[in-house]
Amino acid sequence: MDYLLGDLRRTHYSKEVNPEISGEEVLIMGWVHEIRDLGGIIFVIIRDRDGLVQITAPSKKIDASILEDLRALRKESVVAIEGTVQDAGKAPNGVEIIPAKVITLNPAKQPLPIDPTEKVKAEIDTRLNSRFLDLRKSNVSSIFKIKANMLKTVRDYFYKEGMIEINTPKLVASATEGGTELFPITYFEKEAFLGQSPQLYKQMMMGAGFDKVFEIGQIFRAEEHDTLRHLNEAVSIDCEISFADDVDVMRVLDGMITAVLKSTKENCGRELEVLEYDLSAIPEGPFPELKYDDAIDIINSKGIDIEWGEDLSREAEKALGDTQEGFYFLTDWPSAIKPFYAMPYEDRPEISHAFDLMYKNLEISSGSTRVHQYDLLVKQMIERDLNPDGFGSYLKAFEYGMAPHAGWGVGADRLAMVLTGVENIRETVLFPRDRHRLTP
Amino acid sequence: MDYLLGDLRRTHYSKEVNPEISGEEVLIMGWVHEIRDLGGIIFVIIRDRDGLVQITAPSKKIDASILEDLRALRKESVVAIEGTVQDAGKAPNGVEIIPAKVITLNPAKQPLPIDPTEKVKAEIDTRLNSRFLDLRKSNVSSIFKIKANMLKTVRDYFYKEGMIEINTPKLVASATEGGTELFPITYFEKEAFLGQSPQLYKQMMMGAGFDKVFEIGQIFRAEEHDTLRHLNEAVSIDCEISFADDVDVMRVLDGMITAVLKSTKENCGRELEVLEYDLSAIPEGPFPELKYDDAIDIINSKGIDIEWGEDLSREAEKALGDTQEGFYFLTDWPSAIKPFYAMPYEDRPEISHAFDLMYKNLEISSGSTRVHQYDLLVKQMIERDLNPDGFGSYLKAFEYGMAPHAGWGVGADRLAMVLTGVENIRETVLFPRDRHRLTP
Repeated sequence: MDYLLGDLRRTHYSKEVNPEISGEEVLIMGWVHEIRDLGGIIFVIIRDRDGLVQITAPSKKIDASILEDLRALRKESVVAIEGTVQDAGKAPNGVEIIPAKVITLNPAKQPLPIDPTEKVKAEIDTRLNSRFLDLRKSNVSSIFKIKANMLKTVRDYFYKEGMIEINTPKLVASATEGGTELFPITYFEKEAFLGQSPQLYKQMMMGAGFDKVFEIGQIFRAEEHDTLRHLNEAVSIDCEISFADDVDVMRVLDGMITAVLKSTKENCGRELEVLEYDLSAIPEGPFPELKYDDAIDIINSKGIDIEWGEDLSREAEKALGDTQEGFYFLTDWPSAIKPFYAMPYEDRPEISHAFDLMYKNLEISSGSTRVHQYDLLVKQMIERDLNPDGFGSYLKAFEYGMAPHAGWGVGADRLAMVLTGVENIRETVLFPRDRHRLTP
Repeated sequence: MDYLLGDLRRTHYSKEVNPEISGEEVLIMGWVHEIRDLGGIIFVIIRDRDGLVQITAPSKKIDASILEDLRALRKESVVAIEGTVQDAGKAPNGVEIIPAKVITLNPAKQPLPIDPTEKVKAEIDTRLNSRFLDLRKSNVSSIFKIKANMLKTVRDYFYKEGMIEINTPKLVASATEGGTELFPITYFEKEAFLGQSPQLYKQMMMGAGFDKVFEIGQIFRAEEHDTLRHLNEAVSIDCEISFADDVDVMRVLDGMITAVLKSTKENCGRELEVLEYDLSAIPEGPFPELKYDDAIDIINSKGIDIEWGEDLSREAEKALGDTQEGFYFLTDWPSAIKPFYAMPYEDRPEISHAFDLMYKNLEISSGSTRVHQYDLLVKQMIERDLNPDGFGSYLKAFEYGMAPHAGWGVGADRLAMVLTGVENIRETVLFPRDRHRLTP
């Protein structure tokens, strides 16, 4: 047994070991997934990122020293196995490897804190405490393969739409919006905060003439939530478009979500199968639109008391979500419960050109036509008890030629929930951060 | 003059207004770049993200009210102009627009804090204070078009290499390395820090069996630098690969940088021209390798006193950089000045399988074969006065089957410096953060 890799290199991933290369010698590397020692024959299943491959060692045909090496293997140790591929109807990919060399690259201590091959699910907290082991399960890793494909599809869609990627700072001097709590940082001699949204920066980029921008990055919210759909650190997909309004950017959002639905079905069939999740049941865009006024009527008709002007309670969201098939837009929100940068209707300023994209009862995105007029922006800040002095460098961009614009932000982790069918946002984040969890 | 966009929509970007559509009616939107009123004829140049287009208004042929609207325009106001395209040899793209309608969508206050059409450069601090205006200059926006293309190319390269994108937390409970300063955060009842690198997380993903991962994300370093190549918030391009060593990942890095050089030359010719920068002078990979031992000899031969085992001073980096044509690897570093996770040579443990990628005197990347053995990792932590207890959840991943692995991180903003030829890292970051700057 040798710890070091040296000149050893994998020749094939598990999925490449198939009947087409029957008779060839291969060197595979991965984790010991299962060991079955039937005396006369030893079966070892090796797992890598792409799947499983079977090692078959009939004791009569294999050297005693190799049989000994196989018997010494422990579950979840990292191994390199050299051998010859041969057809085997019942094994993964229809082949097995007859081993010629067995090397343990890194042994796994026993017992394992959680069993990656377990059939019954452990509690989420136990799983997260040993996340590296939890992620070895195909039903867990599948979520992150779908999420990676989602982010690639989103970017491809943005490129196709002529958008430029930007990176805006996460260390900021002031709050984006009034209500949301911020994490304070000691920044040398100054006080700073963690950005709760790239909102102000992507708007400034509209003043910089960048026309159409996107950013996929971390956002931080110090809210004391304890729900299945909030985390204190999340990934946000943000876009902002000049010379466009709320209706234009709703179509961009439609298009993006539809591209993601299509691409997940096309590229992640195996992962959806592992998750036993039928994505084709979700209607593609363009998505239906429902005005806030009508939503209130529907919610009231379900016996839930909610008055015009109120934000939707969780109960209200659920009642409304039950009446919807999949994604839908909630539009024309009361101005007072939307941020200062949302554009009010000219003829009915108590409502605004603001929308949410919902998936059943889950909010996926918020967006709006933005206010591009300096005076109106300052007025709306003051109405919300925000001090314009705290927004100096942002407001300045509105004085010297700010383009009319609109945009939205999508919670990437929430969108991943829809794509994978999981009900806890912690399932779609590798190392989630909530009020009680800062590790691993 | 109307502030609202209403049904107005752009029909063409400036670059789409060319002789092919001569005779057609167009509606363009953008910023007033220049106004020249010669009495008998008024020229107005409109700028959008992609370039310039000329509005030509001979007073004899144009309505008096339109001439009045044109004369009322102010530099950098946002306008929509409708008119007919006609050939004009000397104008941008060989065409001009004869205006039929002039609408100011948002007027710019005068005077402007900086002039986006100025020929002489303002000081960087003045420019950053009005960054949204500074970014309207083509020599500034070109940098960010090149950077966006760079990030796209990097991801395409990673996808081609079979790598999975990951998002790891930026709110962390402990330091990645000993030396670097961290920004502390108050995280509810706990103390937390901003991640200075995704190092520990991407390594844990090797224990999770993800095989090859990448992340492009923010990193935060509370170092009190005041140089042209350090910022306190930066974007890092990180990759980590299982069953691979330092030499393998140096070839991946070679390949990535070369792909970026090629793609910049192919896709950003116009931007390079604006920057007057000749990227073809930089040799493509594979890049030459220089052992630390030999580097010390070269530096000493230049009359700079440096002893074996010391890190390179700025003076030493400069002397060494002067002897090199472009990118080069510095390999086989003394173990003591590399982090605990760098793998020492088996037969000569005082040096390690660690490398830096330099561009002349600028460090672009650091990488290494990582230690995958639990006992050695703990030993190396203790040797560096780090307490293994602070790394509990990281170390646990090494006890239960950690794959041998290697990886690197690239400073994205520094790589953008090489691609654009700028000498101050603040030029390659939209809203840079240094000790003295938290706004805009």
